[in-house]
Amino acid sequence: MDLDGTPANPNILRADLALIGFGHVGRRFLTLLEDRRDHLLREFQLECRIVGIATASHGAVASLEGIDTRLATARRIAGQQLGSEATSIDVIRCLGRSNAALRVMVEATTLCITDGQPAIAYAEAALDCGCHVISANKGPVSFAYRRLSDLARRSQRSFLFEGAVMDGVPIFNLVREAMPAVTVTGFRGILNTTTQHILSAVEQGESFAEALARMQAEGIAESDPSLDTEGWDAAAKAAALANVLMDADMTPHAVEREAVTPATADAARTALKKGHKLRLVASAEGRDGNVRARVRLTEIAADALLATLPCSANALILSTDLLGEVAICQMGGDLTQTAYALFSDLATIARRRAASMLS
Amino acid sequence: MDLDGTPANPNILRADLALIGFGHVGRRFLTLLEDRRDHLLREFQLECRIVGIATASHGAVASLEGIDTRLATARRIAGQQLGSEATSIDVIRCLGRSNAALRVMVEATTLCITDGQPAIAYAEAALDCGCHVISANKGPVSFAYRRLSDLARRSQRSFLFEGAVMDGVPIFNLVREAMPAVTVTGFRGILNTTTQHILSAVEQGESFAEALARMQAEGIAESDPSLDTEGWDAAAKAAALANVLMDADMTPHAVEREAVTPATADAARTALKKGHKLRLVASAEGRDGNVRARVRLTEIAADALLATLPCSANALILSTDLLGEVAICQMGGDLTQTAYALFSDLATIARRRAASMLS
Repeated sequence: MDLDGTPANPNILRADLALIGFGHVGRRFLTLLEDRRDHLLREFQLECRIVGIATASHGAVASLEGIDTRLATARRIAGQQLGSEATSIDVIRCLGRSNAALRVMVEATTLCITDGQPAIAYAEAALDCGCHVISANKGPVSFAYRRLSDLARRSQRSFLFEGAVMDGVPIFNLVREAMPAVTVTGFRGILNTTTQHILSAVEQGESFAEALARMQAEGIAESDPSLDTEGWDAAAKAAALANVLMDADMTPHAVEREAVTPATADAARTALKKGHKLRLVASAEGRDGNVRARVRLTEIAADALLATLPCSANALILSTDLLGEVAICQMGGDLTQTAYALFSDLATIARRRAASMLS
Repeated sequence: MDLDGTPANPNILRADLALIGFGHVGRRFLTLLEDRRDHLLREFQLECRIVGIATASHGAVASLEGIDTRLATARRIAGQQLGSEATSIDVIRCLGRSNAALRVMVEATTLCITDGQPAIAYAEAALDCGCHVISANKGPVSFAYRRLSDLARRSQRSFLFEGAVMDGVPIFNLVREAMPAVTVTGFRGILNTTTQHILSAVEQGESFAEALARMQAEGIAESDPSLDTEGWDAAAKAAALANVLMDADMTPHAVEREAVTPATADAARTALKKGHKLRLVASAEGRDGNVRARVRLTEIAADALLATLPCSANALILSTDLLGEVAICQMGGDLTQTAYALFSDLATIARRRAASMLS
């Protein structure tokens, strides 16, 4: 590196990244980035440097010289402060002052189901100061997709969110990159893992409370599971899909929504006696301003694709004009897959930049 | 258009196309191209012109001024000659003399399971004279992927074949464009529709001969169904997947292969009594020079994803390093989907060209 921080090889592009949110996903993203450093260099001549990390309750750290990510990780795991009182917005503005070829805000905070904030404000601040936005949070895309994608277009920056639905399994990339000229006319799918686990378990005779407690003990369900059981997580995913794939401009609050409750266990067992499976299905139909999206407990024939998914699987069936119905399934999810969603968005930005660098 | 055939708008790229093979798929591709003309113009500033069509038994037609595709279609449907005695290679060489920004050979001849010819020779001839190659034929990718992709790389042209597996449902595009840095370590899937129909039908009590005759009457099975029933179609698809996704460099003849025969009906019904489904599963495992690929009659638990596919569906489960298992399913296929595979390959070439045009 020479004095102004430019890599010595002039063909190598530098990307400066700031992580907003530094929980399990953010930390796994850092190790994945390290693991795949060679891939980014070889495929995109891209070299990444972390110049900021902001957390909700453990402070922040930022430096345009690059920060010590191992130290930050060790402090965060030990429950220590990262060292600075800077806010997330401060860290984003610091990133905006970088002279790197690419400046990327990597946002992995948790969903606020009231209004998607403050993640939306973070995305706006980043785009406003010339940074690309990658988000593993469902908030920005489910509450403010049209506004943020318009802002990104005007700023000639990318706003990407592959992790919002089915972790790193490509949904948005699948349609955008691999299905040119195809119109999505609707979808239905199982998008929430906690309720899928609960419904599978109660069919086996467990009670709702037992199933939930077991999942919490195994780390599958959150200590406050209400976002999942009340259908909000699935509704946010349905809104994200409807906004991006069907031009809907809706929020999760516009999605008709049902919850999985202790009473649902009886309904699931009754359905099973009829040879059906009761599942929490997210769906949408229509186009443009007239999209209707729903999260509903639905009885499905036991031999249908959505009924036969293992309890840890998700699936999405897209209805299209040219390809009929196309299904994509995530057979099991883990932290690596969520972190990979951020990585694949970074690769998309690198590819777009590589194309424009030919100019 | 001015006299040398350049479109009047200098921002519009012209693509000249020659169709080698003009059966149902080639003709549906022409109408799809017409239907989506606006999309190609809007997204890629691409305007397509057909400068040649070659058939196996109805002659050919070629002109760098563009040909009358409606007349050619009408003649072909009426069983008439297209008008010229030119060979497929002649038509490809004519395309090679075009001055269009993009020259694309669109190959939709039938698979020769002996050696993949003459489709491989067509691809070589096209790449040799500076044309891109799009193929809906499994031959080139299953018999000669490494050679043709090396030749394409040296010629700075594209060799694409999305239609070789699951018609237009993106498989190769999915992995290449939407799963950056992911390594495919294996796959298993149901990739042949005729045998899927037969196995579903014999479970319902039909005999092999009845099921086959019904499918032939419905146009699902070929009058000579041996490519399907003897497992060759699935073996060619397995070889194509292994070559492209797992760097195998094999041919369909290196795939272990089982056939669906009248005796299979009994085995399918026996499996059903055990609660299993007997399915023709194509699979591969290993990497690089050590990939083992198989097409085998396999008993699958009735509630597994591959067992629950409708009789007209195909599915492929990819095993990966970063995303675990990812499945993609084609819930039903038709001619439009096969033609769309060619269209999506054309869009890929247009996108690559648009990126390089920034230079």
